[in-house]
Amino acid sequence: MSHEINTNVSPGEGIVQKAKRAKTAAIKLANATADEKNEALLGIADSIEKNRDQILAANKKDLEVATGLTEAGKMSKALLDRLKLDDAKIDEIVRSVRDVARLEDPVGKTLSAIELDEGLELFQVSCPIGVIGAVFESRPDVLVQISSLCLKTGNAVLLKGGSEARNSNEALFEVVREASVSNGNGSEGVGGVPDGWVQLLETREEVGEMLKLSDYIDLLVPRGSEEFVKFIQNNTNIMVLGHSEGVCSVFVDRDADLKMAEEVCYDSKVQYPAVCNAAETLLVDSAVASEFLPRMVERFLEAGVEVRGCSRTLGFFDGAGDGEGDGKGDGKEKGKEKGKEKLKPASEEDWRTEYNDLIISVRVVDGVDEAVAHINRYGSGHTDAIVTENKETALKFLRFVDSSSVMQNASTRFSDGFRYGKGAEVGISTNKVHARGPVGLEGLVIYKYLLLGKGHAVAPYTGSNAKPFSHKPLSKSF
Amino acid sequence: MSHEINTNVSPGEGIVQKAKRAKTAAIKLANATADEKNEALLGIADSIEKNRDQILAANKKDLEVATGLTEAGKMSKALLDRLKLDDAKIDEIVRSVRDVARLEDPVGKTLSAIELDEGLELFQVSCPIGVIGAVFESRPDVLVQISSLCLKTGNAVLLKGGSEARNSNEALFEVVREASVSNGNGSEGVGGVPDGWVQLLETREEVGEMLKLSDYIDLLVPRGSEEFVKFIQNNTNIMVLGHSEGVCSVFVDRDADLKMAEEVCYDSKVQYPAVCNAAETLLVDSAVASEFLPRMVERFLEAGVEVRGCSRTLGFFDGAGDGEGDGKGDGKEKGKEKGKEKLKPASEEDWRTEYNDLIISVRVVDGVDEAVAHINRYGSGHTDAIVTENKETALKFLRFVDSSSVMQNASTRFSDGFRYGKGAEVGISTNKVHARGPVGLEGLVIYKYLLLGKGHAVAPYTGSNAKPFSHKPLSKSF
Repeated sequence: MSHEINTNVSPGEGIVQKAKRAKTAAIKLANATADEKNEALLGIADSIEKNRDQILAANKKDLEVATGLTEAGKMSKALLDRLKLDDAKIDEIVRSVRDVARLEDPVGKTLSAIELDEGLELFQVSCPIGVIGAVFESRPDVLVQISSLCLKTGNAVLLKGGSEARNSNEALFEVVREASVSNGNGSEGVGGVPDGWVQLLETREEVGEMLKLSDYIDLLVPRGSEEFVKFIQNNTNIMVLGHSEGVCSVFVDRDADLKMAEEVCYDSKVQYPAVCNAAETLLVDSAVASEFLPRMVERFLEAGVEVRGCSRTLGFFDGAGDGEGDGKGDGKEKGKEKGKEKLKPASEEDWRTEYNDLIISVRVVDGVDEAVAHINRYGSGHTDAIVTENKETALKFLRFVDSSSVMQNASTRFSDGFRYGKGAEVGISTNKVHARGPVGLEGLVIYKYLLLGKGHAVAPYTGSNAKPFSHKPLSKSF
Repeated sequence: MSHEINTNVSPGEGIVQKAKRAKTAAIKLANATADEKNEALLGIADSIEKNRDQILAANKKDLEVATGLTEAGKMSKALLDRLKLDDAKIDEIVRSVRDVARLEDPVGKTLSAIELDEGLELFQVSCPIGVIGAVFESRPDVLVQISSLCLKTGNAVLLKGGSEARNSNEALFEVVREASVSNGNGSEGVGGVPDGWVQLLETREEVGEMLKLSDYIDLLVPRGSEEFVKFIQNNTNIMVLGHSEGVCSVFVDRDADLKMAEEVCYDSKVQYPAVCNAAETLLVDSAVASEFLPRMVERFLEAGVEVRGCSRTLGFFDGAGDGEGDGKGDGKEKGKEKGKEKLKPASEEDWRTEYNDLIISVRVVDGVDEAVAHINRYGSGHTDAIVTENKETALKFLRFVDSSSVMQNASTRFSDGFRYGKGAEVGISTNKVHARGPVGLEGLVIYKYLLLGKGHAVAPYTGSNAKPFSHKPLSKSF
């Protein structure tokens, strides 16, 4: 829905004023101490608990309108579910804010230190990015999540949620704002958590306007459907941190432990199919296809997975396939029987499709090179796995697959900020700049260079008799 | 000129084919060894030396056309100068390519390593970004520079130079391509330096087309005037690594060593005014203005610098200024005399202007807070310096000035990739994502995650009886 927003509007006064206020606040917030930020986060968590009834009442208003729309066929049931808050959801929101408070402060870390010459020292120090634009659909809990991540990293944030969650968002926003601000109108140069650091945009038109505010917004973080994220990416020249899609593959190599392969493939597809790191494609080395495929396909079919195969895959199930005629093993025979009835042919489009569902496309390939070529051609650069015991083959796959996460003998479902130990996940990025793959707090910080001298001028370091630089690493922090 | 390019064209076959070839080559180049890449770089350097005469002959053709245009008033003399190659320029190009070969390989470094659970190890490893789009004006040496930086970092590159340098660019491109490619048609999965890694776009229309190729180009690196860079930034949704402008300030605090302040200000403005890290604004604390300003202004005027002052600054030179009536010091009196005649009033516009020339705007402010507010309001977030002996004041300035480089007691002119010890400078970025400030090879690499397991599935780590992750840091490399 939101991707039909009109972008041919010029930024109105309202949103520009909000963006300016956010930018002013950002500089102060960047200098809030870890304690100040954590205190604000814990204040938000407490306040959400305290205002639970008001928040649920606001959400109820949204749900009433949404239920009507759903009954009239104008809103999906899934969207209605995402919109809904209840006590358990509130508990989860509160817990996640407290979790963010417990994370290490990513701001103010010395990333490098070097002496340029005697008494002239350069420090590269992590700092917030500035102003984040967060755009999200339906789920009101995202408002709290993204606000708490921005607060923790010292960034101001402009929030724009879905209009269907308007009442819920307003209630949550007020709680976040009121509970976090420590110095309402602090004078220039004062840290703490300043008023203005978090702003709520209220009208639908404001999204289109927001995408034009490259003078104020340093990074856009969209949350929602792939279509929604793509719409944002295609309608702004502000950097977007978001993943386009997850067309993930598992390749079962000729040197795979086939029992292990079965478990990895099963987990990658079946454990939770609705998410971007679930596998959509199974690639099988022709050398082991006849042994592996019937068993695997049977297991998929039993789990209710629709299997779409390439012609070679289908061949294993109609007797016209590559060899395979010894008939040993009951499972295999049974698999062949079942598969014969149930397998569908895969189209060219299937190789590029993120099903997010219990469907898998299967292709037989002649070895790792063909698997890599398939993935780099049809995949989305998200997560791909090989199952093999052969180190050399694994190394080739790990090196040549151009994806943000490449795995050996592990389920693609591990590709996730929490599992990767990041504490909090800002998103999974299929960008190839700034932050790639599962992104934690590090995706919301950048750095600045601080140079401390004793009156150093550049002139002596130039010309034919130039003084040399020492460029000596320093083992101290700023 | 180039910013008048028509962007309302749909990508033609030609450029899409070139982009596809570059993307295919990128995956192979990403896996070239440091030795293979360095050998290719040294080959390029040798070949430029060997083909010096042909390159200069091609450049002569461009110069003939350009000289005609200059005489007809259709091209600036400055542009003609930038277009010109001679033996010294060629020597410099050759030397700089050899310098790049000597730099450490930024690809394949283990940035982090962590155990998720027993036998499940996650490595974050640096890798090339993929395909770089380089757009540049007039200077043909940029073609070689950006190609060598891309080659060193394992990135494929689409090059688009100015049409006025067409013959020079073609000659240099052929040398770069022929001398670098080690395996013309290597099969899938072979490293080395593959054909196709470097592509030359030839027509003016191709720039507009290039800006739309977000499916193939991962990062744009424009080189040219600020206007040109801004045009690129405003007409693409591909990430652009480029600086918009450098409106740099030096603030002389009340606790400054005023002799040191004079040297830092002088160097920041006068040492080389045509560049982005030269100072455009001098901010002086009112507490020391009467002592510092007359002397400083005199020194600027003697160096031929035009001085534009705020009303308080002008006040010091017409007798109506803030106090200052003891009359000690000849220099100061002389400065006041000179200043009275020569000072011009600064307009609001001056505070935002990058002169790139011997002009400076001067403002008297009441302390560090006002200086910080001025810089964050009018500056461009490039480089700003404070001169002070007061640690607390310095810390406030270093923390609250929102610029990529912030300095204490050092000239703004130090803000530069070579001076910062980066070996090679890709550019100075005023972006607040990906890479900020002087950018070396690190701006052309990103990372991928490699997860090595033993058949690990996600299922056991989920649900009510979930296995915990260890998230133990590992002290080994991939």
